[in-house]
Amino acid sequence: MSSASETTPTKRRGRRPAGQDTRAALLEAARAVFAETGYEGATVRGIATRAGVDAAMVNHWFGSKEGLFAQAVLELPFNPAELLDTLLSGPVEELSERIVRTFLTRWDESGGGMFAALVRSVAGHEQVAQVLREFFLNHLFTRLADKVGGEDAQFRATLCASQVIGMGMIRYVARFEPLASTDVETMVTAVAPTLQRYLTGPID
Amino acid sequence: MSSASETTPTKRRGRRPAGQDTRAALLEAARAVFAETGYEGATVRGIATRAGVDAAMVNHWFGSKEGLFAQAVLELPFNPAELLDTLLSGPVEELSERIVRTFLTRWDESGGGMFAALVRSVAGHEQVAQVLREFFLNHLFTRLADKVGGEDAQFRATLCASQVIGMGMIRYVARFEPLASTDVETMVTAVAPTLQRYLTGPID
Repeated sequence: MSSASETTPTKRRGRRPAGQDTRAALLEAARAVFAETGYEGATVRGIATRAGVDAAMVNHWFGSKEGLFAQAVLELPFNPAELLDTLLSGPVEELSERIVRTFLTRWDESGGGMFAALVRSVAGHEQVAQVLREFFLNHLFTRLADKVGGEDAQFRATLCASQVIGMGMIRYVARFEPLASTDVETMVTAVAPTLQRYLTGPID
Repeated sequence: MSSASETTPTKRRGRRPAGQDTRAALLEAARAVFAETGYEGATVRGIATRAGVDAAMVNHWFGSKEGLFAQAVLELPFNPAELLDTLLSGPVEELSERIVRTFLTRWDESGGGMFAALVRSVAGHEQVAQVLREFFLNHLFTRLADKVGGEDAQFRATLCASQVIGMGMIRYVARFEPLASTDVETMVTAVAPTLQRYLTGPID
């Protein structure tokens, strides 16, 4: 999944063997460091030191601090910052369709179990919620808001988040039918106009 | 809170003293019975017998099976079936505004803590999710769908639920700003058009 996955690491200064052990050590260290220092306070170097491996291993296995956070704390099957790059690369008029389609396709692939696990984690641990909040606000919402523009852009970004998260709650956690089994394109048609209004339409 | 609160119970066949002990015994019995038999399978009489009190006590303390379920399992500060009666009593064109306003006003009163607790409970226990699903589908969504009409009414009801639950997730669980602190009427203006389209507008 990492964009650096074709690179073979040549230098191994850590105490642990390379490969899956390094990856596991980084995940464990990252969970501890993010919980102790918050998202902003955590550094790639600090996490690597704690794991006893070279900082280059973070880039090798996770692409970036965001990618490590996504896998260690959120246990996402993708890097949300990279995903947002892709989403934001197209015209803003089609952004809402891309968001709904991508969100549902990615989470459907895991049967929704990973979304439910994330909700459990955020709802059950204020520490996780706090780190998530910082990450979303500073890295996802701010960039979405920059794309949208205007002084109420952050409000618009959180409105979008409310519809996307709610769609996930009904589809993967509460599993209310028929929404839980509705095909992705029908969902895009029904929900994308909501996001598009939140992003660029009249909201006051 | 109960509509029968002015009635003084005259017959006490139960083993427990009346008053708060009766109420507590009913809540405990209800949690067990709903978990064992599901929402439909549970009877007022069965719950009362398990609690060792007269079945009339359910009506006295909770108004109905729905009211008991709302307090025992969902730990809601209100009876959702009664609330829905109020919401559905007005014209369908204003239904979306009433839903958003009522939802936020009720949950804001508890500081959102009760909403977060409900999400934890549903996300953490498939048994609770299952009972909740049955209750929502058969008692809330079906009635909302009846009001709305049309063959896709259940899909429309679950779309509404997705936006309402998502608003609660962002406001009370993730607490993303500025949405988390936005005043109720600004939220109504921003979100009600979404619900109105889901209820009565074009969705395909």
